[in-house]
Amino acid sequence: MQLKGIAAASGYAIGPAFIMQEQAQDVERKVIDASQVEAEVSRLQHAVNQAMAELEKIKDDTAAKLGEHHAEIFATHILVLQDEEFVGQALEKVRSESVNAEYALHEVAQQLIDIFSSMDSEYMRERAADFRDVSKRVLAALSGEKSASLNDFESPVVLFAHDLTPSDTAQLDRSKVAGFATNIGGRTSHSAIMARSMEIPAVVGLKNGTETVNNGDMIILDGARGLIIVHPDQDTIAAYEEKKQKFEKRQEEMKLYKDKPTVTLDGKHVELVANIGNPEDALGARNNGAEGVGLFRTEFLYMGRDNFPTEEEQYQAYTTVAETLGKEKPVVIRTLDIGGDKELPYLELPHEMNPFLGYRAIRICLDQVDLFKTQLRAILRASVHGNIKMMYPMIATLAELRQANAILDETKAELDKEGIAYNKDMEVGMMVEIPAAAIIADQLAKEVDFFSIGTNDLVQYTMAADRMNEKVSHLTQPFNPAVLRLIRMVIDAAHKEGKWAGMCGEMAGNLTAIPILLGLGLDEFSMSASSVLPARVLLSRLSREDMQDIAAQALMMEHEDEIQRFVQERVEAVNQLLV
Amino acid sequence: MQLKGIAAASGYAIGPAFIMQEQAQDVERKVIDASQVEAEVSRLQHAVNQAMAELEKIKDDTAAKLGEHHAEIFATHILVLQDEEFVGQALEKVRSESVNAEYALHEVAQQLIDIFSSMDSEYMRERAADFRDVSKRVLAALSGEKSASLNDFESPVVLFAHDLTPSDTAQLDRSKVAGFATNIGGRTSHSAIMARSMEIPAVVGLKNGTETVNNGDMIILDGARGLIIVHPDQDTIAAYEEKKQKFEKRQEEMKLYKDKPTVTLDGKHVELVANIGNPEDALGARNNGAEGVGLFRTEFLYMGRDNFPTEEEQYQAYTTVAETLGKEKPVVIRTLDIGGDKELPYLELPHEMNPFLGYRAIRICLDQVDLFKTQLRAILRASVHGNIKMMYPMIATLAELRQANAILDETKAELDKEGIAYNKDMEVGMMVEIPAAAIIADQLAKEVDFFSIGTNDLVQYTMAADRMNEKVSHLTQPFNPAVLRLIRMVIDAAHKEGKWAGMCGEMAGNLTAIPILLGLGLDEFSMSASSVLPARVLLSRLSREDMQDIAAQALMMEHEDEIQRFVQERVEAVNQLLV
Repeated sequence: MQLKGIAAASGYAIGPAFIMQEQAQDVERKVIDASQVEAEVSRLQHAVNQAMAELEKIKDDTAAKLGEHHAEIFATHILVLQDEEFVGQALEKVRSESVNAEYALHEVAQQLIDIFSSMDSEYMRERAADFRDVSKRVLAALSGEKSASLNDFESPVVLFAHDLTPSDTAQLDRSKVAGFATNIGGRTSHSAIMARSMEIPAVVGLKNGTETVNNGDMIILDGARGLIIVHPDQDTIAAYEEKKQKFEKRQEEMKLYKDKPTVTLDGKHVELVANIGNPEDALGARNNGAEGVGLFRTEFLYMGRDNFPTEEEQYQAYTTVAETLGKEKPVVIRTLDIGGDKELPYLELPHEMNPFLGYRAIRICLDQVDLFKTQLRAILRASVHGNIKMMYPMIATLAELRQANAILDETKAELDKEGIAYNKDMEVGMMVEIPAAAIIADQLAKEVDFFSIGTNDLVQYTMAADRMNEKVSHLTQPFNPAVLRLIRMVIDAAHKEGKWAGMCGEMAGNLTAIPILLGLGLDEFSMSASSVLPARVLLSRLSREDMQDIAAQALMMEHEDEIQRFVQERVEAVNQLLV
Repeated sequence: MQLKGIAAASGYAIGPAFIMQEQAQDVERKVIDASQVEAEVSRLQHAVNQAMAELEKIKDDTAAKLGEHHAEIFATHILVLQDEEFVGQALEKVRSESVNAEYALHEVAQQLIDIFSSMDSEYMRERAADFRDVSKRVLAALSGEKSASLNDFESPVVLFAHDLTPSDTAQLDRSKVAGFATNIGGRTSHSAIMARSMEIPAVVGLKNGTETVNNGDMIILDGARGLIIVHPDQDTIAAYEEKKQKFEKRQEEMKLYKDKPTVTLDGKHVELVANIGNPEDALGARNNGAEGVGLFRTEFLYMGRDNFPTEEEQYQAYTTVAETLGKEKPVVIRTLDIGGDKELPYLELPHEMNPFLGYRAIRICLDQVDLFKTQLRAILRASVHGNIKMMYPMIATLAELRQANAILDETKAELDKEGIAYNKDMEVGMMVEIPAAAIIADQLAKEVDFFSIGTNDLVQYTMAADRMNEKVSHLTQPFNPAVLRLIRMVIDAAHKEGKWAGMCGEMAGNLTAIPILLGLGLDEFSMSASSVLPARVLLSRLSREDMQDIAAQALMMEHEDEIQRFVQERVEAVNQLLV
């Protein structure tokens, strides 16, 4: 039997299944004697303290093992327990209703969870998960149990769970848990991101994995394909053992490519850079061998807070990244790309029927010039600390590009007047992620220093199919011939004006796409840090001239599957890497 | 002072303002003596009967004046009054609570209005307006007043109202009301549609027109521009008097073109056809001089009901249109385009974050083959009754087109087996409304008989801007150079394969766009019936060869405004018509 989920972290796990049971969260209400109320209050207080101590330890362990950024979630959980609104209300409930601590805590938490869960904002719904996670831990402390460890297994298991909380995931022991699979979650959920950092093969979004698989069932988990094989036969196990060894050997080999430049077989250097979402990621990018940052998303500065970040805060963040990467390595900062699926409560964006087609990114910045200028000032000021470049997201027309550049010029003039230093030659480019921009790339290329193709959005608009909507996911396919033609138009238009063209969508790190993109002349490939090394290995085995032929042939084809098959058949190096 | 609203019906009105006051709908609750209850019940019954009689008359008058289709809304209102749930409950309330008829009726209506207003579906929210309109009429009957007539004016006025109900609008007397302006409503609201049919200049969506303007203020209403000028000076009045005369003269002239073919100055025939949304509109298309139907939307068959329409119902509807247009005139039926902003309660579509990028149109039909086949059978069977063609909406890939055509072939084979006749040479085409389809039009053209470009959707996807979202409405502009390039690609691709290319989006009827489209080689222009005559007048004054130059120059330009100005400056015939 096979189960298909979402590929969350590459690698293979082979071993018996262990099903993590959901603990029932139904908490009984018990009225307690008036004389015992203060004892109950203190019991709850103790449990909260114990939970905080546990979280402190998990936080420190995680920071040491995976880096500060991954530990942040636990700092948030500690804050939740320090919040008067939450624990204070639960203590108050014990007193006012003379009820047991478990019930009081559970009720107060559930109320908050219900409120947060019902909110439209993704960010707020995640807050519900925080309260769920934290109250579970306090309830465990109240029951006298230590929070159940996930690592009490004899031999390495493949762990199946409905969901793994961040604390569950952070505590997994790689020698006991060969891989994990969850019913819910997506490629960018917390546990998936952590799994990739921890190099634990993982599949998420299995829907009913915990119900379909039994404890002790023999399992093969294929993290790259999002596949679970239950009760595989001996031949399949043998085949996967071989794949697993190859994969692990390749992982070792890759590390040899870490600090090498990216040069094709025929001597062409292309730039292999990373996408990052906050300053902490910059270290990960460097450690994974990236030659710089091709996309520094700045939304983190604006999210999870009550007001706009100051110029100073932004300046610090941009400078940190520039300094982490050093004087030479480029860092491309993308100006604010809020709206769409990313909301800012304090910006009061309108409710929209189709947020992906709405008021977002540069559209907001051109409308709210002060907001935009603050960011531009911070970027310009940071530009003296490294090789900083800047780009605008979601440009659809030449008028928008000109308007953005005019605001940039105004900002520069202000800095000049104030005698503040900035790099006067800072490169300014734009994302190409709207079909209109790709189609008039020849006009736009005259007025930018570079393009960066954002394939995630470009694909969804070109195909008119929401990339988050599984009912149309068969259409959001970067190998679609129409998408490839647009990419070619953009690269050709840039080169005709002597500009460079990069790509910072998921496609740039796709091993089957890389040969085509190289053949089309792409100059810069920006991807998640973990994809950099495999991409470098691949690129160093490809000849650019050969890939020009491959690309030309691929672009004459009619179907995305045909194109992928063709590349995989014709380019041996791809097959070697797609273990 | 000027007020800007939404252009609802062309033409000019000059005269004093008359502000229609909203009657307060707050109805007092009075307890009545038990002995009077049956008298009160009978009073309510009488008022309902009087309202029904009034509605019957309005319905007949409207049918006679504007056609059956416009009268339908009043048939719906009569049904509301015949509905046991509504009047029955109000009668019951009088009895059970011993309250006055006004209060009982108002309460029951308000409850239904609240329920319908809160629903997600546009269709259901319109039902709330029905109950509001009907209960107002019954309350007026209860008060002993005749429903206030809107036509008690000495001289022609410009009427300002918060909103006009369909019955208000239908009863307007053209000799007393020179034009009207409402605070709410859009271009496709009931009153706007009726205004166009009645040729009453109208502006809607003024927001606070009734509060800003006073009774007796001198007003100029410019229906084409959605403009209200309050207290114009004498020069402005004189200028508008001249415009008004020109406009009215042109309206008369146009009627001369009604039954002529559409031939350009240099002798090229293009097809000028209408978009229709139900069989009744076919008559309007013919009466407005359309040479056929370029887009027959079939959603009306599926909406406002509890289950799918049968093959027989569909067959009847398609046959009616074919027969109304006659043997020669083409009727292009578009297969079901549900989803997006059009919901079907009984189809249980998923809730989507971005419905315009979601599961809709051909995507649903390819997934729910039975639903699709029923429609295909009905269309094929109807094809023997006229010049029926068929097209698929929302095709994004060659694979989808092939899949749709395969289902069509299967359906034909079934009809063959059953010995049922159909036109074996029926033309089958597709809408081009997704950027991907335009970009691979060369591949698609080999496998269709024609293209019809749907500019409304094509623009919104190309620009990544929801055409219903006013925050980004500056981007949903068909004159955008990227959109024009896509249109050229589609037309060229069709012609290269010897196929024809039409357009059924709003752009096809835009007088400034027509010269460019003619120059690009568009073969068929499909538009709202009321646009057909102006378009024919324009096309008959244009030389196609000249327009090829104009189009070539327009496509080199960088900005939509520049393009529009250029056409208006260079093409004298456009200016003559854009009074």
